[in-house]
Amino acid sequence: MININELISGILSQNTLDIAKAISIVENSTIESHSLLSKIYQYTGKAHRIGITGPPGSGKSTLTDCLIKSFTDLGKSVAIIGIDPSSPFTDGAFLGDRIRMMKHFENPNVFIRSMATRGSLGGLANKSREVADIFDASGYDVIIFETVGVGQIELDVMNATDSILVVLVPESGDDIQMMKSGLMEIADLFVINKADRDGTNKLFIALNQVLSLRNNNAEWFPLIQKTIATKNEGIKELTEEICNHFNIISNSGELSHKSEKRYSHLTHQLISQKQKIEFWDEKKKNELTEQLKMPITERKSPYQLSDEMYNK
Amino acid sequence: MININELISGILSQNTLDIAKAISIVENSTIESHSLLSKIYQYTGKAHRIGITGPPGSGKSTLTDCLIKSFTDLGKSVAIIGIDPSSPFTDGAFLGDRIRMMKHFENPNVFIRSMATRGSLGGLANKSREVADIFDASGYDVIIFETVGVGQIELDVMNATDSILVVLVPESGDDIQMMKSGLMEIADLFVINKADRDGTNKLFIALNQVLSLRNNNAEWFPLIQKTIATKNEGIKELTEEICNHFNIISNSGELSHKSEKRYSHLTHQLISQKQKIEFWDEKKKNELTEQLKMPITERKSPYQLSDEMYNK
Repeated sequence: MININELISGILSQNTLDIAKAISIVENSTIESHSLLSKIYQYTGKAHRIGITGPPGSGKSTLTDCLIKSFTDLGKSVAIIGIDPSSPFTDGAFLGDRIRMMKHFENPNVFIRSMATRGSLGGLANKSREVADIFDASGYDVIIFETVGVGQIELDVMNATDSILVVLVPESGDDIQMMKSGLMEIADLFVINKADRDGTNKLFIALNQVLSLRNNNAEWFPLIQKTIATKNEGIKELTEEICNHFNIISNSGELSHKSEKRYSHLTHQLISQKQKIEFWDEKKKNELTEQLKMPITERKSPYQLSDEMYNK
Repeated sequence: MININELISGILSQNTLDIAKAISIVENSTIESHSLLSKIYQYTGKAHRIGITGPPGSGKSTLTDCLIKSFTDLGKSVAIIGIDPSSPFTDGAFLGDRIRMMKHFENPNVFIRSMATRGSLGGLANKSREVADIFDASGYDVIIFETVGVGQIELDVMNATDSILVVLVPESGDDIQMMKSGLMEIADLFVINKADRDGTNKLFIALNQVLSLRNNNAEWFPLIQKTIATKNEGIKELTEEICNHFNIISNSGELSHKSEKRYSHLTHQLISQKQKIEFWDEKKKNELTEQLKMPITERKSPYQLSDEMYNK
């Protein structure tokens, strides 16, 4: 039996073992999970949450590596959440990249955690946000979400952060179209990594064109930073821009606004879960199964069935 | 005021104007929408729903073009739903492709409809499924969902079909990793289009490797078909394979199983919508707003708030 209050004291005093224990509780959705998350909530809201995404091969991990170093050099503690929504049989590369980060394991100011899909994809973005809450409560200054991103999970993860970095390489020029699904609209900073390669300027111009078409209502206009992560070039500038973005959104109220949206979204989600569990008792499940036994021509339509079940 | 029963007679007798009217009702979520969809449900379940997806530039539209022709040559009527989840300012290419299909507009056995995002992305997959129900009820033999696919919407659309085609080009070899998010697992047929280019065999081998690792429980093992859509090469074979897939899943019960899953999913979704609308009255919305006015340190956690609101 876990003593939640002891565990929380441990988290608040940045005890590594207690943090790891809390992450396991959240990852495994044990019964204590919501109670723990509820109790630490009031201690959250201080960390700077940074999302890093981009196509495979763009050098996200090397860049994250560089950023860990430059943030710790500034005296900040850094937690990294590596999110891998890939299917079980194709995730080799990502875990390989993780090993390169091992050198940071010696540093008490750095905590690295990888999260992979177990079963359904749906929960992964939620769980990484919950893990971030633990890091936040325990006082980490910077929390980096790094995702080999494709699709809705990537957007969900990025929407749970304060500053969104999209990492591209010069060859990505043709892939800007691939990014239609919303990334172009939400990025705060674009990184052109491997910027010593051909195509860098072409991509720079293309990105600028896309950005000029974007609805920019705010104080912040997305920047494009060139880097060569393997040589640590452009990292200092990038770190400054990231910090600058955080300061600007802190002062403008945008940061509070983002955090309020997350609060509201989570409350809605939790209510829906409760309603679902209560509604779908054995009797209702059987009613649905009965319909499925009939041919379509004799079934009630899903619209009629849901009306009848709901109004009973 | 629309007379729903007249409209339904029109749909069932494949009156093009009535079909277009019904699609508008669904697209605009007018008050008649659910009543219409409920009443046509019993007439659905006869069409073969085919999903076509793949990266930009893989030639999906040209291929769809070819398939329209080969299906109509077999005496089948074909409806096409082009789904474009892109942001407003980057969708030029897709609509351009549509124009190439104009030649089919003269053919009464072909109905083409493009759907773009209006506001939220969430509803697009749902709406395209609803439009497909209209086509299905009106007797179209084949319904093709074509999507410039990235992310969760793509998966949602594909999951609403019976046969899933993923179109690649020889250059896609390096991008197989990009497709981690689930496509590799759900494809029934892979098409290597532009198969006169370098890299075709390399991609063929790579795909075979990935497929050999896949959990194949079923009677159907995914095929890989090479095509050159611009020269109509490989299309006849592809059409036969698509029809063959439909026959096999019809006989094995897999087709009914898919349709039952959709029925169940939709019923769950409709119930959740009703619950959400009923729960979030003005009073509850205000309770949430009150919490947001306080600093995080004084707020109830979202877990506590949702517990209290739900149990009231």
